[in-house]
Amino acid sequence: MGTVAARLADIVGAENLLVGDAISDDYAHDEALSVQQQKPAYVAKPHSAEEVAELLKAATEAGLPVTARGSGTGLSAAARPVEGGLLVSFERMNSVLEIDTVNHVAVVQPGVTLAELDQRTAEAGLTYPVYPGELSASVGGNVGTNAGGMRAIKYGVTRSNVLGLQAVLPTGEIIRTGGRTSKISTGYDLTQLIVGSEGTLALATEVTVKLHPRLPHGATVLAPFDDFDQVMAAVPKVVTSGLAPHILEYIDNLTMAALVYNEKLELGVPDAIRDRVQAYLVVALENRDTGRLEEDVETLGELLSELGAIDVYVLEGGSARKLIEAREKAFWSAKSAGADDVIDVVVPRSSMSPFLTKARELAQTAGAGAIGCGHAGDGNVHLAIFCKDPEVRTKLLTDIFTCAMDLGGAISGEHGLGRTKTKYHKELEDPAKLELLRRIKQGFDPAGILNPGVLFS
Amino acid sequence: MGTVAARLADIVGAENLLVGDAISDDYAHDEALSVQQQKPAYVAKPHSAEEVAELLKAATEAGLPVTARGSGTGLSAAARPVEGGLLVSFERMNSVLEIDTVNHVAVVQPGVTLAELDQRTAEAGLTYPVYPGELSASVGGNVGTNAGGMRAIKYGVTRSNVLGLQAVLPTGEIIRTGGRTSKISTGYDLTQLIVGSEGTLALATEVTVKLHPRLPHGATVLAPFDDFDQVMAAVPKVVTSGLAPHILEYIDNLTMAALVYNEKLELGVPDAIRDRVQAYLVVALENRDTGRLEEDVETLGELLSELGAIDVYVLEGGSARKLIEAREKAFWSAKSAGADDVIDVVVPRSSMSPFLTKARELAQTAGAGAIGCGHAGDGNVHLAIFCKDPEVRTKLLTDIFTCAMDLGGAISGEHGLGRTKTKYHKELEDPAKLELLRRIKQGFDPAGILNPGVLFS
Repeated sequence: MGTVAARLADIVGAENLLVGDAISDDYAHDEALSVQQQKPAYVAKPHSAEEVAELLKAATEAGLPVTARGSGTGLSAAARPVEGGLLVSFERMNSVLEIDTVNHVAVVQPGVTLAELDQRTAEAGLTYPVYPGELSASVGGNVGTNAGGMRAIKYGVTRSNVLGLQAVLPTGEIIRTGGRTSKISTGYDLTQLIVGSEGTLALATEVTVKLHPRLPHGATVLAPFDDFDQVMAAVPKVVTSGLAPHILEYIDNLTMAALVYNEKLELGVPDAIRDRVQAYLVVALENRDTGRLEEDVETLGELLSELGAIDVYVLEGGSARKLIEAREKAFWSAKSAGADDVIDVVVPRSSMSPFLTKARELAQTAGAGAIGCGHAGDGNVHLAIFCKDPEVRTKLLTDIFTCAMDLGGAISGEHGLGRTKTKYHKELEDPAKLELLRRIKQGFDPAGILNPGVLFS
Repeated sequence: MGTVAARLADIVGAENLLVGDAISDDYAHDEALSVQQQKPAYVAKPHSAEEVAELLKAATEAGLPVTARGSGTGLSAAARPVEGGLLVSFERMNSVLEIDTVNHVAVVQPGVTLAELDQRTAEAGLTYPVYPGELSASVGGNVGTNAGGMRAIKYGVTRSNVLGLQAVLPTGEIIRTGGRTSKISTGYDLTQLIVGSEGTLALATEVTVKLHPRLPHGATVLAPFDDFDQVMAAVPKVVTSGLAPHILEYIDNLTMAALVYNEKLELGVPDAIRDRVQAYLVVALENRDTGRLEEDVETLGELLSELGAIDVYVLEGGSARKLIEAREKAFWSAKSAGADDVIDVVVPRSSMSPFLTKARELAQTAGAGAIGCGHAGDGNVHLAIFCKDPEVRTKLLTDIFTCAMDLGGAISGEHGLGRTKTKYHKELEDPAKLELLRRIKQGFDPAGILNPGVLFS
């Protein structure tokens, strides 16, 4: 065992350090498509912030690149290790430390999964409302990528719900940021800077998240439209209505066909209607009172009909759940259909229609396919890209991202840049902003050990 | 006219540059107490981002300290200029550029007041929900200090509602951050870093804020309690109820007496009750439907009675508005009563009671007074400090801030550090975090021209 391995083993215990062949393939990738797998030289499984601090000190001294890993469910390869580097896996730091029912926060270790947190908050009548669609994802991973998901239209994204962090700097200091309150105006907001930094600034070792009352009654409405522009025009009207939907999604006809087929959904949409649909709107409401929920569903149905829905289907609990779950698994449908990349561009929701028209034109010109669904309320478009040739694909994605940015959008709404989108960011972003990001990175991580290749190439 | 003045006059036009005696006293202060006034050498009134950029370039080259000013309503002297420096006043950049009813955002220049924005959003049936209590405040000033206010319990603070910025770096580059969407995961969040940075990193020249549906019906409930701990125990129950109050304030008996006296409030609380009250809870609800609002007010009243309220008063529109306005003016009551400082410590709401007990003890020991009110839902405590001796006051505030931080809180919830609290922050904050802040500052403002003396001494 080399001296570096010996030192790392000293820190976490020999049984929590994997080296060489003991490292399984799982640690060599996350769920991003089209990225080469890469095993690290070491996998360390710390169980405390102090151990993480010691690991980072050792890594800084040895010049060892460090990648953090939660559950490995990321879609942009931000958790793919570097050759010869150290992977810090948070699998053993997986405790819910506290469900605080007075301040309405949960304090958790980064390896806690969303499923676990959901169960624990449910017991208290509360909810952590960020559902990026993969319940095995870890809170720490969500913090790294600023995960979003379907309920962001009502509850915001990860960043909106993280109140505080304990984090370890690459130089080994352990800091605390924020706290159990939404209101702090005491210096720069380090919490918000670390959220979404994809493991390049500091490693979160404890996360304080905001909890919300868990509203017990919910209903899901499915509205097919002849025309995509009608769907997009309906979205702001639904938002302004005051009905406060917590899910507001569109699904295009091809994606819906794939979901229905893969997940054996029974949506009750007659064939004659299904054949003419260009896109569906899925709207979910929730309430603490069943009577009010029923009234709201009726109001919503009337509104959607006025806005041009061919019909309005109130889904039964079981089929509603299956549809939402299927939508959450859209990535897996795309993957099993042979998609070569998945992108999650964001644009102002007013620009979704022009964006999609242009993106489809670009794909067609490139001889590629681009189908998808998305968070209509947030302008977050998920497209599965079918295009085998890497060069053609790079050109196509560059054009699609350029189009999104020209419309006032950004490359990623929730997946992050990771290893898959960093090169586009570098090429397309304002150099003055790239320079600021570089200086911030330099301020946190002067030795550049944290996740090299992510955000900066 | 010196060469610097000539260059500044070239940029903004001679009629928009004030020098020497032409600078009125207004520009020498904001509303912070106990801070010496200081006129700058120059006041420039740019009317575009390009002019701001030229001003900052000139300032960088001349080594001229620069302070930004909105309406001058700040409470921590972040807008108080530096001797010999340049004050950039945004009074001419006061246009609402767009109320976007599809994306539900407003795009405004920094000098727009909250009153103006409120009027313009009302016309569209929307609202910008951050009400820090002073409608003449500017949006740019709110961005600088991350202003909060009473409605944060439902809608969050400024930071939660700013989606994007155009900002000018001290080196003269104009950047755009964020956009007309809540979901972006494309590099570090520069928007969130600039919000709350008190004019020390960059000057915002355009702000994109999130708008919400304006719910037309509202009601305000006043509940007196015998005991402060009961008030604090009631707060989380009201939050968990799902009634979603947009205002949840406590007012202690002395402060309420001052408000009633100064503002001639008629609250309908009988003398016999008033004499035994230790603190009041003020809860406001809103709804798009009057029937639901009435039901909710009834539910709230029952809940508050169960939680120990002596009685529950549903205030008529006029007196409710007057009470809320009086609460918003509590600072002015404190000022006219001769307060020597005003602090806005934040703690987890579970710690408000122990914090207040300790703070009053500390004040008593110091022979000082500390009375107040606060945003009970957010743990944000406003205390008017009556203590003439500056040394005793510094010691008292140090002790009070230490107590808040030991309870997991922070020095300021919404006023910012400015020139009044920076020294405490420097003394009490973790040196590792101070060093990070310094490095971030250095990355944005290598010449250190932006607001020296604020956040860093």
